[in-house]
Amino acid sequence: MSFLREISPMVRSIHLPGQEVLMSRAARIRTELRQGIKKDFMELIDLSSSDIHSRGIKPISFLRQVMAACCYPSLLHSDRIPADARERARSLLTDSNGGSIGSYPPTGGMAKVRRSVSDFITRRDGGVPSIPEHIFLTTGSQQALTIFLKLLVSGEGPLRTGVLVPVPSYSTFSMALANQGGVMVPYYLCEEQGWALEMEELQRALQAARGHCNPMALYVINPGNPSGLVQSRKSIEEVIRFAAQERLFLLVDEVYQETIHGEDTEFVSYKRVLFEMGSPYSSTVELASFHSVSKGTFGEYGMRGGYVELVNLDPKVMEHALTFFNRDGSGTVMGQIALDILADPPQLGDPSYPLYSQEVQSIKNTLLSNVRRVHSVLNGVPGMSCQPIRGGLYAFVQLHLPQRVIEQAKEAGVEPDMMYCQRLLNEAGLCVVPGCECGQREGSYHIRFCIGVQEEIMEEVLQRLKSFHSHFMREFS
Amino acid sequence: MSFLREISPMVRSIHLPGQEVLMSRAARIRTELRQGIKKDFMELIDLSSSDIHSRGIKPISFLRQVMAACCYPSLLHSDRIPADARERARSLLTDSNGGSIGSYPPTGGMAKVRRSVSDFITRRDGGVPSIPEHIFLTTGSQQALTIFLKLLVSGEGPLRTGVLVPVPSYSTFSMALANQGGVMVPYYLCEEQGWALEMEELQRALQAARGHCNPMALYVINPGNPSGLVQSRKSIEEVIRFAAQERLFLLVDEVYQETIHGEDTEFVSYKRVLFEMGSPYSSTVELASFHSVSKGTFGEYGMRGGYVELVNLDPKVMEHALTFFNRDGSGTVMGQIALDILADPPQLGDPSYPLYSQEVQSIKNTLLSNVRRVHSVLNGVPGMSCQPIRGGLYAFVQLHLPQRVIEQAKEAGVEPDMMYCQRLLNEAGLCVVPGCECGQREGSYHIRFCIGVQEEIMEEVLQRLKSFHSHFMREFS
Ligand SMILES: Cc1ncc(COP(=O)(O)O)c(C=O)c1O
Ligand SMILES: Cc1ncc(COP(=O)(O)O)c(C=O)c1O
Repeated sequence: MSFLREISPMVRSIHLPGQEVLMSRAARIRTELRQGIKKDFMELIDLSSSDIHSRGIKPISFLRQVMAACCYPSLLHSDRIPADARERARSLLTDSNGGSIGSYPPTGGMAKVRRSVSDFITRRDGGVPSIPEHIFLTTGSQQALTIFLKLLVSGEGPLRTGVLVPVPSYSTFSMALANQGGVMVPYYLCEEQGWALEMEELQRALQAARGHCNPMALYVINPGNPSGLVQSRKSIEEVIRFAAQERLFLLVDEVYQETIHGEDTEFVSYKRVLFEMGSPYSSTVELASFHSVSKGTFGEYGMRGGYVELVNLDPKVMEHALTFFNRDGSGTVMGQIALDILADPPQLGDPSYPLYSQEVQSIKNTLLSNVRRVHSVLNGVPGMSCQPIRGGLYAFVQLHLPQRVIEQAKEAGVEPDMMYCQRLLNEAGLCVVPGCECGQREGSYHIRFCIGVQEEIMEEVLQRLKSFHSHFMREFS
Repeated sequence: MSFLREISPMVRSIHLPGQEVLMSRAARIRTELRQGIKKDFMELIDLSSSDIHSRGIKPISFLRQVMAACCYPSLLHSDRIPADARERARSLLTDSNGGSIGSYPPTGGMAKVRRSVSDFITRRDGGVPSIPEHIFLTTGSQQALTIFLKLLVSGEGPLRTGVLVPVPSYSTFSMALANQGGVMVPYYLCEEQGWALEMEELQRALQAARGHCNPMALYVINPGNPSGLVQSRKSIEEVIRFAAQERLFLLVDEVYQETIHGEDTEFVSYKRVLFEMGSPYSSTVELASFHSVSKGTFGEYGMRGGYVELVNLDPKVMEHALTFFNRDGSGTVMGQIALDILADPPQLGDPSYPLYSQEVQSIKNTLLSNVRRVHSVLNGVPGMSCQPIRGGLYAFVQLHLPQRVIEQAKEAGVEPDMMYCQRLLNEAGLCVVPGCECGQREGSYHIRFCIGVQEEIMEEVLQRLKSFHSHFMREFS
């Protein structure tokens, strides 16, 4: 009495991605440490995800004060919560159905929050208008991306929808695309140029795809995960021109827009550049931009709050999009509250402003300091190299592995960087993601780790990594 | 520059379900009332969903106190929050990654919460054991059902997976099944017998399905939505025997288990009955049971917290289930906190017990009183009849419509009960769901409305409904 023999063949072909294999090994190691089993390290450090709170980075107080008061409205009268946080909570509760965050948000999201997000975008983009009705609030940006792929992907055989996807990239997107039956068309970022997005490579990828599938969209991640690339305005203009010429829909993943490292780098949104390019681009290129409360200094990964803004969509497509977001994209009031505060934080003069800006600045300082340490320490280690990390939450470090490592991995039937990560986890208690999970040029090997962690811990990570690496390299030399 | 011509044909065939058409009309009416446009009613009352907070039923304080303290841990020192709520918050925070509810919950759900749920099930089922590792916490029970359908549904043509689904039922399940490519095999509940689930009808449905599809699972909703049926132990035993004999997987939707109306009705879980039936049933019949924080006295619909318990699954299928729930089913820490409190509420002797039990009892009293009023008022209205409502949150009322209504509806190309609901909404400001959205026997017509609302409002609803109904019937007689 089992339906195994009949289980969907698609299901059977799904395997745990390498990252999850490592994560479940990490969970086992944690249990063993708790049971007192001796290891060469006292504590496991998991830098595999961008979940900064899981590593002890503290949430932003203002956000949590508003949430607490929304949860339990008696706190609207408590002086443990600053006046502006109470005020915000009051207005969010007024906008919740029945005045409770336990009710279901309206389709598309709470009206007040959609307005906040739209104002935020307009301010960010130097006045480029944004329409609240074209913004959909979802359960994290991943859900918004998945819904969008459902809308986009169709066809069979050589007519299947193709999407140009950067390599390296983050694996959840590629999995969602495959899941939807779409074809991934890889374009390689140029590592030697700081993971630059080069137009010849986009051209090559598109040409190679034609005939195999129907390339309809171009996915970009800016700032990059895992590349750390932040595109210049010029680079964005080139991509937009390319999309216009090739009639590609632009899927722009801008979830890391709040984390830019250093004064000399600036985030400019695709939408802003598109509008500032003027006609015909500004009125014809179709674009969807994604953002989230999971990243940046908020790091509210567990809240699952995200949005997508749709630009220049055909009104008929817009109607379908509406149906889709209405049916599948709901989100929780909590996630939407977090978005409201991301979009409309305390301003100079508000009671909560000093603490808020101090907390945000402190996390930004931590990130910048970590970026600098990663760069200076790891670029000094023989057999490692790391491009500048201009934005985002990750370091993506190349490993120059000896031929013997590659051979031994091949014999074991595992990717060389996966083997490296397994040993790094077992021997040094560091959980990082192998480059093979993100995609990389054939014959190159990488590791990815999150830089969102306290400075002392980052120091410990770098020491463990350096020491493991030199042992490992010696063993195989 | 539009991908409309290429948009997925599946997408194009999706239409807004009738309930959403009514809801968007309702939203328009609300706006018009706010603008001061005169109507025959002062306020719109929306009873189309089970979202009780949206209609002003207050959340349970203990739950919200724990949530508030989890959001903003400074409140762990505030005496605005009772000691046991603070204690609970502390223990939930300890179990959250990094001590923050903003971190991502572990795959499957927080260990503490899975244990609470497992203990809850064991207590509820008189000691039948429950394994925390076989419980998966999800973003609402709807997500758990959808993930399960992904696992279950496969095949093409006459080999497509069929699922027996009660009629009437709740439309989201049928849509998810269709979406997954599964075949809905309807079995009709017997209205005259208080919507009883009869074995001959199950047999008939199964026979009719064979050859058209591959019936693999039986979906039951107990207590029923919209039927209000609560199955007896004997009825459940019959269904289990049928499932065993026909080798059907049991999908048991028990999200309304906390709302049983009146002393003479009792909820018994399928799992309990299964185990008390003993061998061979207890070790062979595969079963998945779903529960949620959306319903009952909690009504935390917007929190999106649910779970599924899997029983007797083949270990190989279990492995696939794990992969699926790991990949798609994440949930938020907030939803899991709500589940923890559903599963482990304050006990006699705890500081919060008196208020907690008073709040729960008050909601139960409201529901019972509403059930009685619906029954006594509507069964006295010519052209209406209502079976006993033993459980759940809905009244499902039969309309005995004159032939002329049916003809006029046919001319207008709309279902007769949909026409009734549209006019009820426009003329009396009541938003309810037509029976055609739930499924009903050909030639019978119904409306469904939620009974989770304050008594005064229910009184107003019944008066408006009665008055509209008699006008409507007179118009067509
Ligand atoms: C580039 C990118 N896009 C989207 C997401 C998904 O974010 P969310 O948590 O909003 O679903 C991630 C998360 O890792 C990401 O790295
Ligand atoms: C029978 C039934 N099952 C499941 C659900 C979904 O509940 P949740 O909010 O947990 O996703 C509903 C909601 O209306 C329902 O009526």
